[in-house]
Amino acid sequence: MTSALNVSALASDLIRHPSVSPDPGETQIALGATLSALGFEVFHLPYGEGEERTPNLFARRGKGKPHLCFAGHTDVVPPGGGGWQHGPFEGAVEDGVLYGRGACDMKGAIAAFVSAVSTVLEKTPEPKGSISLLITGDEEGPAQFGTKKVLEWMQAHDQIPDFCVVGEPTNPASMGEVIKIGRRGSINVRITVRGKQGHVAYPHRADNPVHRLIAILSELTAEPLDQGSEWFEPSSLQVTSIDVGNTATNVIPAEAAARLNIRFNDLHSGKALHEWIETVSRKHAPDCDVDARISGESFLTKPGPELEALRMAVRDVTGREPKLDTGGGTSDARFIALYCPVAEFGLVGASMHQIDEHVTVADLDTLTCVYERLLERTVA
Amino acid sequence: MTSALNVSALASDLIRHPSVSPDPGETQIALGATLSALGFEVFHLPYGEGEERTPNLFARRGKGKPHLCFAGHTDVVPPGGGGWQHGPFEGAVEDGVLYGRGACDMKGAIAAFVSAVSTVLEKTPEPKGSISLLITGDEEGPAQFGTKKVLEWMQAHDQIPDFCVVGEPTNPASMGEVIKIGRRGSINVRITVRGKQGHVAYPHRADNPVHRLIAILSELTAEPLDQGSEWFEPSSLQVTSIDVGNTATNVIPAEAAARLNIRFNDLHSGKALHEWIETVSRKHAPDCDVDARISGESFLTKPGPELEALRMAVRDVTGREPKLDTGGGTSDARFIALYCPVAEFGLVGASMHQIDEHVTVADLDTLTCVYERLLERTVA
Repeated sequence: MTSALNVSALASDLIRHPSVSPDPGETQIALGATLSALGFEVFHLPYGEGEERTPNLFARRGKGKPHLCFAGHTDVVPPGGGGWQHGPFEGAVEDGVLYGRGACDMKGAIAAFVSAVSTVLEKTPEPKGSISLLITGDEEGPAQFGTKKVLEWMQAHDQIPDFCVVGEPTNPASMGEVIKIGRRGSINVRITVRGKQGHVAYPHRADNPVHRLIAILSELTAEPLDQGSEWFEPSSLQVTSIDVGNTATNVIPAEAAARLNIRFNDLHSGKALHEWIETVSRKHAPDCDVDARISGESFLTKPGPELEALRMAVRDVTGREPKLDTGGGTSDARFIALYCPVAEFGLVGASMHQIDEHVTVADLDTLTCVYERLLERTVA
Repeated sequence: MTSALNVSALASDLIRHPSVSPDPGETQIALGATLSALGFEVFHLPYGEGEERTPNLFARRGKGKPHLCFAGHTDVVPPGGGGWQHGPFEGAVEDGVLYGRGACDMKGAIAAFVSAVSTVLEKTPEPKGSISLLITGDEEGPAQFGTKKVLEWMQAHDQIPDFCVVGEPTNPASMGEVIKIGRRGSINVRITVRGKQGHVAYPHRADNPVHRLIAILSELTAEPLDQGSEWFEPSSLQVTSIDVGNTATNVIPAEAAARLNIRFNDLHSGKALHEWIETVSRKHAPDCDVDARISGESFLTKPGPELEALRMAVRDVTGREPKLDTGGGTSDARFIALYCPVAEFGLVGASMHQIDEHVTVADLDTLTCVYERLLERTVA
């Protein structure tokens, strides 16, 4: 029904839309048109108002099982000043390397998916399963009106897939190194201790909040949270700031505050960690404030038939046995994991968020082949 | 040789010089003239240049032993805004109360000493011992060109007394409660820990200086420094500030700093405390910076004949047994203690440094009587 689309050309086209987060929307209009031409039913699903308005796209081809979804984002981080060899929004290719903001994170992966689909459809115009794309325009920002909202819509419209692959760059140095099968959870906490101000010469008339805070933080950091679990590294608590702002050397201050972040594995939940911090804090400072914000719970997609298909596809194409990993930061996969099994496999991320973000054309071809093999092993 | 001088009138005269620290000098010119008329040899000893220029006065009457010195300061803290019932530099007396900046801290005490001397000289024109005054114009400020420098001059000119009484307000609520016989030492320390910045998701690639600082401060504050000594309250370490200033919730910062103050008794020295803090800090953060500044060592004048004379004088006049105390903040007595025994006894300090600083005429009379009795018991 159509001839295969070239991945480098597709990626260049996407890069030429300067879609600094949140994506203004043109990238997704263009992507929607390409997908329509490939026989997808395309839904543009903007959420949020004003400055928060976020374009999103859901596109599906076919109704059959299994339903494989490819998830990603068209927004990019800012170019970050000058010094680019090629303009960040030119999409230039030189000596087999594609340059531009989003080259690896992650317009290159979106192009690879579209190219793979076009190739598979050439061979198998009507595959048994169905294929979809879940694309947001705000993954690099607050992410409140993106993937999360689209998933709610998908749930309401019976569009939840059997398996989802997120195209975030997962490979540290070369293709085939890492498939991410989970992510640690993340919680940010602010502890504020109030005491009673006074002169350092008369400490019995004051109540030093700094000492109470030291006792709290000392207990919270005294022991590792765990030793890691079957699929996860140990959880990690990091105190990121303590701020008192008292410039007088002879005054005991009235208040002291600390902030910390925990990246936690599947042995913990955000709620339980919050409760633990509350308990420890109140032990040393009964009327302190503990303000906690859970950015995401940990999640894990345990090995199963779909993940096995992705692993085989990576092995077939790259000749490598990918590591099934759960390290690193958060991604929109944390939202998807609430609905269906999800894994992440994309390009080499070494240059992401940097000046001269780039990807080799060879890697783009490799990723396209991996996605092709995955489609063949699942929906074709 | 002269008729006794009235203490309230003398105190009012001194208050009418608006000698906000450092004293511009007129107060001491006037005081020097009064002392000359009483037969004192007067030395004006300014030290420091420009804005730091500090007027000081040393005056001595007689050459005999024992040599009793009365020490104090003519400078005052600023009036601190409006709202005074009587102008801060009017020296008004109303209903038996003298109002004005310096009334209790400590022009009233200087007036009491001059009045007491004039009374004693009426009875005993040529006392066996000698009497001196050591007056600075910068006790409330940096105190670098005041008492310290005058003592060096006194040492060089063979003028070191056998006993010194500082006229700082020592009584919390009424006359006769407290004689200060020592003060705790004070040391200010700043600890700066450098780590390695990084992302909270990859703590193994970073080195969190906040955690090292928490370990240091936790160890420093874990146990009391001591349980107090024969004449002193327990020493006290107070962490006054911790400042990181990291606003990013996902970043491990590069540096963290804390400040602390220790008020220490005669079981410690500033040097030993500095070394202890260095040792504890380097244990947890080998290349940290520990910047220590010793404001003053602790000192103690143990009971002896001169202190006994002061104690008896207070008891004779007030009918009270004064507490021999070493609490509270620092005063110029810390400098004097390096040269001779020193104790502090003055007015009621409840209103010092406040709006409507005041002292009762009755208390001025009581203090004058105490100084008279002390002179009679020592030099007369």
